[in-house]
Amino acid sequence: MQKSLYQYGMIGLGTMGCNLVLNMSDHGFSVAGYDKNTEQVNRLKSLTNNSNIGAFDNINQFVASLNTPRVIMLLVPAGKIVDAVIETLKPIISKDDVIVDCGNSYFADTQNRIDYLLKDGIHFVGLGVSGGETGARFGPSIMPGGDVKAYELLAPMLNAIAAKVNGTPCTAYMGKGAAGHYVKMVHNGIEYALMQMIAETYHVLKNICGLNNKAIHEVFSEWNKGKLQSFLIEITAAIFLQEDDLSEAMLIDKIADTAHQKGTGAWTSKDAMTIGSPTPSIDAAVAARTLSSMKNERVKAASILATTTNGSTANINIQQIEDALYAGFLITYAQGLALLQNASSTHAYDLNLKTIASIWRGGCIIRAAMLETIMQAYEQEPTLQNILVSNHISTEINKVLPSLRDTIVNAINFSIPTPSLTASLHYIDAYKSAWLPANLIQAQRDFFGAHTYERTDKEGTFHTKWHTNIQ
Amino acid sequence: MQKSLYQYGMIGLGTMGCNLVLNMSDHGFSVAGYDKNTEQVNRLKSLTNNSNIGAFDNINQFVASLNTPRVIMLLVPAGKIVDAVIETLKPIISKDDVIVDCGNSYFADTQNRIDYLLKDGIHFVGLGVSGGETGARFGPSIMPGGDVKAYELLAPMLNAIAAKVNGTPCTAYMGKGAAGHYVKMVHNGIEYALMQMIAETYHVLKNICGLNNKAIHEVFSEWNKGKLQSFLIEITAAIFLQEDDLSEAMLIDKIADTAHQKGTGAWTSKDAMTIGSPTPSIDAAVAARTLSSMKNERVKAASILATTTNGSTANINIQQIEDALYAGFLITYAQGLALLQNASSTHAYDLNLKTIASIWRGGCIIRAAMLETIMQAYEQEPTLQNILVSNHISTEINKVLPSLRDTIVNAINFSIPTPSLTASLHYIDAYKSAWLPANLIQAQRDFFGAHTYERTDKEGTFHTKWHTNIQ
Repeated sequence: MQKSLYQYGMIGLGTMGCNLVLNMSDHGFSVAGYDKNTEQVNRLKSLTNNSNIGAFDNINQFVASLNTPRVIMLLVPAGKIVDAVIETLKPIISKDDVIVDCGNSYFADTQNRIDYLLKDGIHFVGLGVSGGETGARFGPSIMPGGDVKAYELLAPMLNAIAAKVNGTPCTAYMGKGAAGHYVKMVHNGIEYALMQMIAETYHVLKNICGLNNKAIHEVFSEWNKGKLQSFLIEITAAIFLQEDDLSEAMLIDKIADTAHQKGTGAWTSKDAMTIGSPTPSIDAAVAARTLSSMKNERVKAASILATTTNGSTANINIQQIEDALYAGFLITYAQGLALLQNASSTHAYDLNLKTIASIWRGGCIIRAAMLETIMQAYEQEPTLQNILVSNHISTEINKVLPSLRDTIVNAINFSIPTPSLTASLHYIDAYKSAWLPANLIQAQRDFFGAHTYERTDKEGTFHTKWHTNIQ
Repeated sequence: MQKSLYQYGMIGLGTMGCNLVLNMSDHGFSVAGYDKNTEQVNRLKSLTNNSNIGAFDNINQFVASLNTPRVIMLLVPAGKIVDAVIETLKPIISKDDVIVDCGNSYFADTQNRIDYLLKDGIHFVGLGVSGGETGARFGPSIMPGGDVKAYELLAPMLNAIAAKVNGTPCTAYMGKGAAGHYVKMVHNGIEYALMQMIAETYHVLKNICGLNNKAIHEVFSEWNKGKLQSFLIEITAAIFLQEDDLSEAMLIDKIADTAHQKGTGAWTSKDAMTIGSPTPSIDAAVAARTLSSMKNERVKAASILATTTNGSTANINIQQIEDALYAGFLITYAQGLALLQNASSTHAYDLNLKTIASIWRGGCIIRAAMLETIMQAYEQEPTLQNILVSNHISTEINKVLPSLRDTIVNAINFSIPTPSLTASLHYIDAYKSAWLPANLIQAQRDFFGAHTYERTDKEGTFHTKWHTNIQ
């Protein structure tokens, strides 16, 4: 018989799961790991001889090794595998046990699993983890949601293993139900747009400013010391220095220009459309990745459609491009956080926007210095509808918006597609327009479909018998 | 006992249902109408004394009045009401009867209903109708799909009541399953983008060119005589002439600038994201309608965020704006038709793109002279992946693309949001780019998530251990 039981269990010992186990162990928590693949089990054993780690390839022994109520974390691919693991566990665990899904599961699936397992008194926690492999090992940003009692069993450990910013852990209880996975989904949606805008900026630096990889590296390195300081800018700078192992070239020039996606960006856009909270910068990033993947069609089209550059000369400098990207980042965070605000009521999550901004400051892929400012904006005004109208951020945006405008105009004149930067500009230009031409859309809908319209001067809805000769 | 039974039944005698009944009757088909609301039944009776029309408020009498196999059309609101009507009908109709849903039902619901009713040998046809009230009365565009045998019971009637272009009816069998409702959904998605781009053009004409309503009417009237000739341009011209019954103003200036939506645009964008077929012009139109509806937030933001116009002077003429809108229209049709092409394989519809372009030439809201050209493109090259690379359309686009570029640059300099026009430009600029900066996105994903990447010079997927100091 074992002397003592493990405090936590981890199912799935791939890189992420394994690294989280090591992270927990480093912070003094005992963890049993399980994987049906013996190689993964042996790999975990080979990586550590910490006495507070167990490694199992037998699920019954794994479950028996855990303290009760059991807290079993999953790091397995989202989708059917999560359900399969749940079905395996259900007969061999007990009422009051907690299953914690640390993968990128779709929030609606998480809600279904919560409801399903609650019938047997089992708690299911949807928990988002961001930070990649390194984050998992040394301190990720962690977004747990669901049952508060179940969360409390996790809280001391999560606070210990999470990234810290000025001593504050980058983790907190997000909210009810699938709130954890929802917040992680929106995090990823924002990540899509930030990455796309960085790529657009790279395109501008390369094709308008004529910079080579070394110079582009220097630009991003400099930017990472200023207001754009962030994980994504930092790794971008590093990427442009990386040499290719298989050729004499720089690696970036040997990587195919066809981006992949796992779907979390599209999930964000789709739920934003369902809720009615616009995220055009994210939508544009999703479409841009797909367009990039259509390489064969693009090459064919390039031979048929003319390159039109309007004969313009470049009229843009590096400082303006920095300001443009900074504006794009702020406007994208604004869209994502406004979506969370709206989702909080639609899905009854009871989210705290300040807390979310706070835990995104460290550990996660979208961590950025500007999240400190954003957090402060919510601190000053907890019911803020949109960060763009907060005191400090509105002042910042007013300063840099002309540069976003100029950068996009240059890109358009050079046939460089900047869909996410431009979606950001149009978002704020529409958001700060007291008047928009949507009166015409109301008129058209009433004209052809008798959908009625509202008036500027009277309450209610109206229908007009429009003069026309059209049949 | 009745002398003869009715050939068709219609459930739902609102304006659309009623007008379709009258249209069918005019073409010599006998139709029984049913509505549970007696007022609607009496209204139908008051509108006609054609002997081939019956009107019932008793569903059993209505069903008993129909020839067998019964063909019962529904024009009721999409959603739960369709299911409720199906449940009412199921026990009182027979095997081989056909239920035809003529509403704007979601294609996935239609597929579920097809599968559900087939168990009882009842055929369910999803049929899209476009053309608004007038179209329904005098000739809509009609998009039926589903079981071929069931379609054949409808075909002679549909061919008779549909709009005609050069004698060809604007209706045809679309494809299997929910193909009819899918094609109608994409029709509506395209409609969203066209309407948004017309609104953006209105904004430019008003705020950059300084035109008043009368002058804007004249511009759209002129455009409707040229390559932009279309239903939406025609009604837009008419809208700017409409006087207000309740004030001295023109009606357009009294209509609130807050657009509504029933969701078919968002359905299109969401399924396009699921399938992986980019429709950024439609996505942007969906977001733009939502932004317009956030009136209170906009007015507040307008007082906080600066109006920046980059001190530019206008550098655009009406001809260029016409070319820009024409380019936007073509690029939007391209996105919608490419989506249908992709959906045809994903959803196994077996669509014929040439047929779809053909039936959209008349009757429907997105009818436009340029659909003739688009139809010809598919005629010349049935396997065309994208109309933008067809012979004739690529030549057209090459001519007008500089004007789209110039119009957007002017709009951006004047802080006028043109999200759908710009999404169209970025779509084609990306589509005709043999190289895009998505290599950086692949590098970033491999850097933080070990997602691997492809190379330009070797097959397979690769992972790099990136140099970095980042923890």
